[in-house]
Amino acid sequence: MKSYDVIVIGGSAAGIPAAITARHHYPSRSILLVRSQDKVPIPCGIPYVFGTVGGPENNLIPDGVLTNNGIEFLVDRAVSIDVEGKRIRTEKGEEISYEKLVLATGSEPIKLPIPGIDKDGVFYARKDVDYLQSLLDRLERVKDVVVLGGGFIGVEFADEFRKRGLNVTIVELLPHCLKLAFEDYLCIEAEEKLRERGVNVLTNAKVVEVLGDERVTGVRLEDGREIPTELLFVGVGVRPNVELAKKAGLDVDRYGIVVDTNMRTSNHDIFACGDCASKHSFFTGKPNALRLASIATGEARIAGANLFEIRRKNSGVVGVFSTVIGDLVLATAGLTEDAARESGFEVVTGEAEAPDRHPGAMPGMSMMRVKLVFNMATGEIIGGQARGGPTVGELINTISTCIQNRMTADDIAVFQIGTHPAVTASPISYQMVNAAEIAIKKMKEG
Amino acid sequence: MKSYDVIVIGGSAAGIPAAITARHHYPSRSILLVRSQDKVPIPCGIPYVFGTVGGPENNLIPDGVLTNNGIEFLVDRAVSIDVEGKRIRTEKGEEISYEKLVLATGSEPIKLPIPGIDKDGVFYARKDVDYLQSLLDRLERVKDVVVLGGGFIGVEFADEFRKRGLNVTIVELLPHCLKLAFEDYLCIEAEEKLRERGVNVLTNAKVVEVLGDERVTGVRLEDGREIPTELLFVGVGVRPNVELAKKAGLDVDRYGIVVDTNMRTSNHDIFACGDCASKHSFFTGKPNALRLASIATGEARIAGANLFEIRRKNSGVVGVFSTVIGDLVLATAGLTEDAARESGFEVVTGEAEAPDRHPGAMPGMSMMRVKLVFNMATGEIIGGQARGGPTVGELINTISTCIQNRMTADDIAVFQIGTHPAVTASPISYQMVNAAEIAIKKMKEG
Repeated sequence: MKSYDVIVIGGSAAGIPAAITARHHYPSRSILLVRSQDKVPIPCGIPYVFGTVGGPENNLIPDGVLTNNGIEFLVDRAVSIDVEGKRIRTEKGEEISYEKLVLATGSEPIKLPIPGIDKDGVFYARKDVDYLQSLLDRLERVKDVVVLGGGFIGVEFADEFRKRGLNVTIVELLPHCLKLAFEDYLCIEAEEKLRERGVNVLTNAKVVEVLGDERVTGVRLEDGREIPTELLFVGVGVRPNVELAKKAGLDVDRYGIVVDTNMRTSNHDIFACGDCASKHSFFTGKPNALRLASIATGEARIAGANLFEIRRKNSGVVGVFSTVIGDLVLATAGLTEDAARESGFEVVTGEAEAPDRHPGAMPGMSMMRVKLVFNMATGEIIGGQARGGPTVGELINTISTCIQNRMTADDIAVFQIGTHPAVTASPISYQMVNAAEIAIKKMKEG
Repeated sequence: MKSYDVIVIGGSAAGIPAAITARHHYPSRSILLVRSQDKVPIPCGIPYVFGTVGGPENNLIPDGVLTNNGIEFLVDRAVSIDVEGKRIRTEKGEEISYEKLVLATGSEPIKLPIPGIDKDGVFYARKDVDYLQSLLDRLERVKDVVVLGGGFIGVEFADEFRKRGLNVTIVELLPHCLKLAFEDYLCIEAEEKLRERGVNVLTNAKVVEVLGDERVTGVRLEDGREIPTELLFVGVGVRPNVELAKKAGLDVDRYGIVVDTNMRTSNHDIFACGDCASKHSFFTGKPNALRLASIATGEARIAGANLFEIRRKNSGVVGVFSTVIGDLVLATAGLTEDAARESGFEVVTGEAEAPDRHPGAMPGMSMMRVKLVFNMATGEIIGGQARGGPTVGELINTISTCIQNRMTADDIAVFQIGTHPAVTASPISYQMVNAAEIAIKKMKEG
């Protein structure tokens, strides 16, 4: 029987950094990564396969990230874990023993219980190259597409489908697209941008039936409207893959495989990280349903470091991400004002807008707007959103750092920034700092 | 006699935010800003007046930033301060009393004691619209320009002069351009980029004489070489404007007007901030000669908030800035590896490079490289540099936040980042996090 010090099950955004981190921290240990697929798509890049980058083969994680780090990998599916004997069994019948095991089994797109949802022509954002190729092939033969779900996955797919010249309609249940991540004014701007780019956006709209015989011919909404379409793309979230863990007797709840703050499961030789693992909020400690590749990699870096010696702690999900529609970049970190209030925080906010170059006549200028959300009781920042050009993608990481360090508005107001005419706002009008000042002003005015 | 609660002397990167911050914190106070110039250039934008933005009139700070915040301003020069009577006197003969005074008198370019330096045709980066216009006019009549000093001011002016089609030669005393801010490998890349763009770069080269009768015709170097030129631009640093403070009997040293950590001068009703004020290092507490608009605004936000109630503290100069040559953005925060060692720190570094998009086939991709410098004794980050495309301008602020919060390599390695295919690296290859991991790996290997 083959034997490794460490086995990682899963080869995507959690499995890979878990294995690499284990390699950095435990250089002499043998590490095997087991994954079910031959080729691994870059998860966040999947929408761009259908417009910008030209196909799934241009969106792969190279195996070099494993082999260059001295990590072996096996393309096979783990089907069971013998926790007493500390070994796994694979679909092809291999038995391999481990000292420490990492579960990074990921998630699957949620299938909604709608009549007709199993018809031919219904697609999802599956992390599977052959499947994505079959969606790409189908797109070449259709004119109309309905996207069910206006979260960031739905919005990004819709924008890419539109780039192919398709007639695209987003159907979103909530009053706005991107509602769970962004303040309403940003959601409205995103919807305007989508419409400007030719995407049809329906909000407060619920799909109750998928029409057609074997093949999709349309969807029916709750209000009776029918939208004809040859393809239905469903992007309404994911559910954790917990079957392997459950079969092995590990604790599992509705949020995933239960882990402690060190990313250990109920068996201390088995860790879990990424979409398959349960999560809690940085702000409230409550369970959290957000699933992002960046959260997965962060958890994987905790799990990988903790395998033989507990060294890192998971402080909970902050929730940091960006989305892009055309040239508009939207980004969020932590709680929106609404979400903060719903969680029971009394909040004060500050907003500031300025060109992201100085003077504004510098080439490539976009208006950048930043909103910060502070906890009134402590003065600490608990959220931030930004809109603007490409640099918003890194700006949100500065805001995330402020949140994770529990900085106050005063800390941020005197924060030492670096600025340059060609790449940022001026130091006088730097948006994040001024948003903090505006919040302080509001606090003083009571 | 006119009377204000607050008078701010100086109307640029320190004076403006000092006045605005005072307004936010003390809404009922009367505030007057006194400045010697009618029009105020955006300081960091000055190099771009000569190539990219088309003239000094396109690079002005609008007076609206004052008037919209209820701040009066007076175009006149403060010539003396009566600290006992708490009043200032201006060049036009006005006497105005204050309760609190802020000195934001800025700096002047350093004039080197080189024979011939006073000839017609020698120019500096003066923050004066008429002067800048006279330089612009002169540029239209010359073909050859020598730039004395290869720091970021010299490099940015050289690149803009080159955009006009001029023959440009940089003469730098040190072994490399940008040597005081960046690691050698970045300096070398910057020099290559300058040469590729047609700028002649001479390092280890000292100008010992400015040639010509009344007008500049060339410069002579220490090794005897003569470089013919019709215009000499000198960008070798600035000296603080301290004359007003000195005349008023305030403590002044060679680094500027002496201030405490609350930005108060030796007279507790008088504050100073920006280029005119003395500075100390965030890392060592030693005097610091760095002068940046972003440092000035940060200090101004401390001074303005502290006028009537001490509320903010200056933690010292971190030193965060970017420079741009063509499409190459270089940025630095805190100490370089060399500077850290010279300051007595034992350090460990980590470096990581990856595309700033994912997959790399996404449009607009640049390779982004990040180097982090950690204090071996504490594990805390004390510096970072980055090179890449425009998003480096905001990335360096994330690194600065890590430094100011004294994060360790482990803190950064599990830091929750936000990523997006169109605007950042992938979460697996996110450069800052991986640089921290590489440093940890090195620490473990001893």
